[in-house]
Amino acid sequence: MSGHLAIIGLGPGPADQITPQAADALARADWLLGYGPYLDRLRLAPNQRIIPTDNREEAARAAHALRLVAEEGRQVAMVTGGDPGVFAMAAAVLEQMEQGPSAWRMVEMQIIPGITAMLAVAARVGAPLGHDFCAISLSDNLKPWSVIENRLRAAAMGGFVMAFYNPRSRARPHQLGQALALLRTLLPRTVPVIFGRAIGRPDENVIFTTLADADPEQVDMSTCVLIGTAETRVLERPGLEPLVYAPRSIAGPV
Amino acid sequence: MSGHLAIIGLGPGPADQITPQAADALARADWLLGYGPYLDRLRLAPNQRIIPTDNREEAARAAHALRLVAEEGRQVAMVTGGDPGVFAMAAAVLEQMEQGPSAWRMVEMQIIPGITAMLAVAARVGAPLGHDFCAISLSDNLKPWSVIENRLRAAAMGGFVMAFYNPRSRARPHQLGQALALLRTLLPRTVPVIFGRAIGRPDENVIFTTLADADPEQVDMSTCVLIGTAETRVLERPGLEPLVYAPRSIAGPV
Repeated sequence: MSGHLAIIGLGPGPADQITPQAADALARADWLLGYGPYLDRLRLAPNQRIIPTDNREEAARAAHALRLVAEEGRQVAMVTGGDPGVFAMAAAVLEQMEQGPSAWRMVEMQIIPGITAMLAVAARVGAPLGHDFCAISLSDNLKPWSVIENRLRAAAMGGFVMAFYNPRSRARPHQLGQALALLRTLLPRTVPVIFGRAIGRPDENVIFTTLADADPEQVDMSTCVLIGTAETRVLERPGLEPLVYAPRSIAGPV
Repeated sequence: MSGHLAIIGLGPGPADQITPQAADALARADWLLGYGPYLDRLRLAPNQRIIPTDNREEAARAAHALRLVAEEGRQVAMVTGGDPGVFAMAAAVLEQMEQGPSAWRMVEMQIIPGITAMLAVAARVGAPLGHDFCAISLSDNLKPWSVIENRLRAAAMGGFVMAFYNPRSRARPHQLGQALALLRTLLPRTVPVIFGRAIGRPDENVIFTTLADADPEQVDMSTCVLIGTAETRVLERPGLEPLVYAPRSIAGPV
């Protein structure tokens, strides 16, 4: 039997946001690789083997999966949170396919999309991504900080709503603060900012703030940060949480 | 019984990409509003009433849903393709909540995310959104074309991969051609371009091309267009479709 690799997005966390397509692909796999906390969410059959890994070992994990498929003919699932193509494992696997033995690029592979964090946070608070937006990883592990700053400037200039992934980690405590400081020189300080963490999970935490008041100390690696624009609306509701949205119309040039 | 509004994303089209959360919300609704082709995808119970609408009547459809909930106490589902917060109905509903009678903003409402088109297209062809990217609607119905051009310039300057929604319609046949012409002055003509239509459906169509060769005639309103960057990799595979991805590393400033 020839091997197969499924790179599977589990979505934001709750089981009812895992698509049937993803659930079927998980059920067909004999070996499951992924960051431990993602694998812990799954109910597995007794014959399914799991290989938990550290979240930082992406290239090694990708190569491991490709070896299992190409050399041992295994049915392998590479499990990621959110969507595998958004700051997750799909690109790491494709890099290994390009750089590894030529047999690796011929493996049978399917990438199964999932609901990525910014969509879950947006749905939770309203429709802040309702107009043009961008997604930026604030991690400078694999790109220089100057590239990130350039992208923040471009996004502000273009009037894009921004979603920040990997905003802050123990090893990178200062990046979000630096990004916010830069944006405060480019955008009105009243721009709405949302910190959305673990949406739909028991440890969910949502913070509504502004560019002026946003405090990086309230953010960790599992938070998705949304930065609005001058057009973003905040709809206050007595006794209820506000709703935040991007209007569909723009009257003039940004 | 008090009314409830669920704004539900069905994802790209195939039934196995509808989340259990969305399916449950659909099952609980007594009235379903949405663009006819989205409603046609659903299997409904005999007691469920559907109100199909024209895809351009977003504000009227949103107001209709809010009246049914606030004034008649109905259990209403507003159904959209993809994700309701990405160039879809959620922002239109929130606009009506802000502009309509004050009771409207107090309705019980839940927005249920779905897999948006760019994620489905990306997963189908590799991981072209594997690094920083933006999503832009090319429709100038509700924003001036100058705003769109400004965003295209900003996205190109920032080195963002771009996903175009609403790239072309019968009423707006020229916008995509104009956008591509502008990008040809800003980006290498070898930049990979993907046209992804109806991913996972029987009429699926995927075209791999380049900025130089991209032909707007091959695109319609149901197509999501992805524009790579100078860094985007195309992994050729003998006898198989290529795989397109954004490398995770960037060595220097864009």
